[in-house]
Amino acid sequence: MRFRLTPQDGAFFELLTTSAGHLVEGADLLTRMLSADRTQRVRLAERLHEVEQAADESARAFLSRLNKTFVTPFDRDDMYSLASGIDDCMDAIDEAGDLMVLYKVGVLPTGVGELVGVLHRCAELTAQAMPRLRSTTDLHEYWVEVDRLEHLADRAYRRLVAELFDEEADPIKVIKLKGVLDALEEAADCFERLANSVETIALKES
Amino acid sequence: MRFRLTPQDGAFFELLTTSAGHLVEGADLLTRMLSADRTQRVRLAERLHEVEQAADESARAFLSRLNKTFVTPFDRDDMYSLASGIDDCMDAIDEAGDLMVLYKVGVLPTGVGELVGVLHRCAELTAQAMPRLRSTTDLHEYWVEVDRLEHLADRAYRRLVAELFDEEADPIKVIKLKGVLDALEEAADCFERLANSVETIALKES
Amino acid sequence: MRFRLTPQDGAFFELLTTSAGHLVEGADLLTRMLSADRTQRVRLAERLHEVEQAADESARAFLSRLNKTFVTPFDRDDMYSLASGIDDCMDAIDEAGDLMVLYKVGVLPTGVGELVGVLHRCAELTAQAMPRLRSTTDLHEYWVEVDRLEHLADRAYRRLVAELFDEEADPIKVIKLKGVLDALEEAADCFERLANSVETIALKES
Repeated sequence: MRFRLTPQDGAFFELLTTSAGHLVEGADLLTRMLSADRTQRVRLAERLHEVEQAADESARAFLSRLNKTFVTPFDRDDMYSLASGIDDCMDAIDEAGDLMVLYKVGVLPTGVGELVGVLHRCAELTAQAMPRLRSTTDLHEYWVEVDRLEHLADRAYRRLVAELFDEEADPIKVIKLKGVLDALEEAADCFERLANSVETIALKES
Repeated sequence: MRFRLTPQDGAFFELLTTSAGHLVEGADLLTRMLSADRTQRVRLAERLHEVEQAADESARAFLSRLNKTFVTPFDRDDMYSLASGIDDCMDAIDEAGDLMVLYKVGVLPTGVGELVGVLHRCAELTAQAMPRLRSTTDLHEYWVEVDRLEHLADRAYRRLVAELFDEEADPIKVIKLKGVLDALEEAADCFERLANSVETIALKES
Repeated sequence: MRFRLTPQDGAFFELLTTSAGHLVEGADLLTRMLSADRTQRVRLAERLHEVEQAADESARAFLSRLNKTFVTPFDRDDMYSLASGIDDCMDAIDEAGDLMVLYKVGVLPTGVGELVGVLHRCAELTAQAMPRLRSTTDLHEYWVEVDRLEHLADRAYRRLVAELFDEEADPIKVIKLKGVLDALEEAADCFERLANSVETIALKES
């Protein structure tokens, strides 16, 4: 029905895999920020920002190749939505790290580790799924699992906010911590939206 | 231009109609939560959550059928956006109910009833519109009305938040109630996005 | 590959250009609201709301023409996403103005001017880009610049919120001002999403 994959299509999937690899790096740094002190957090947030910029580079390389290629493995707008979907995940992770530093949140409730753990798992699954886009097979488990994780993140997020209301008396601190939790939950949403894009593409190709 | 509807397409529209019916059930429960006491609210939120899971079932049945069907009534990604659009509405309604319980908000300002009333009307209109997707006719009024309702919800939301600032002195309580109002407004947005998807599909088919 | 542009296609681009012109008007009024006193702000917000309604009119005229036209310059759903993308930007600007009045925020931190300045520039770039959609050329700079501006807005937003936490002791005032900043940041996001839609269309046409 559509053109077969050409050898040169490989470059697209490699660039997506590289971009998604940055998500794992970013999630690693975010995890380390949780238990870091202020000085370390500032340094880790800077490194996270460097990773975000490296991811931007991969996205630009991908889009520039897309612009120059006549026959693309999927519809142009689907290719585009993959690249921008990864970019959104990266931005959201970077934002969460940035807010931890900017808002000077201090020690985070232990439950936050669970939420960041879910993001880390989402990043890993995404990085593993990107090379499988070549054949659009074996992707079903990826999006089902990311969907499940997003639901888990959602539940964890709501419970953490409710605990915050019960345990933190200082309203400014509540607003700050809720801001960080919002950013983490938004990152989980980004992973789900990317998985939905992959699902849509796989459905079209099937 | 495209394949005519086949008898077996009917199953898709029935599944969408069933899913959208869950939205009405959900909106009913949410309405009842408003005037309920804490114990009743907890019970109603549990039932709301059961409805959300039933809706998930319908969505899964829909997607599994989509996967196995060669010729679909609309483009595969449009079919997908309908199912996931309904799912988003359901999740948003479920979240609003969940937050009322988790945040222990107590008595809600009376104006919240107006906002939930708008959601209820959106759910009804959506449930009535789904069977009409078969012929993609008579849908114009549906999306125009949902658009209008979303604007109404938006105005009501902003006014309610402003009143909260004027009338509630406890900042933590302000944050909690604003959180519930945010969730209700987000639900209205979800209904509008779904109506936009329907509009886009109807435009393509026209 | 696709039908050539017909003379009558011009009307679509004129309507989009008119709509985008309303964005500049809206951004002008929003800028003037910053340094206005309460009475003036109320009046400017009313005028902003009139502009929003004029933009709604243009969007309706566009969609009604789209409905009646057999051969459209781009895919119907892309045409639709342009009109609704402009509408989202307008709504977001209108909301920001509305909240300044409804929340009675008083004097705004000076940094807010930077954020509104970015929105103003986005509105101008968008208005200039719309007529260029005719040929889908010379649009690259537009979306690259809007992307850059959105990143700038994002950074400015986070810094402003962090400053608010440092400088404002009254939590209710923090919530109000953060609400206005959220709305301004959301407006920048809307401009970026619109630029992404334009990019997707231009990629398909290239």
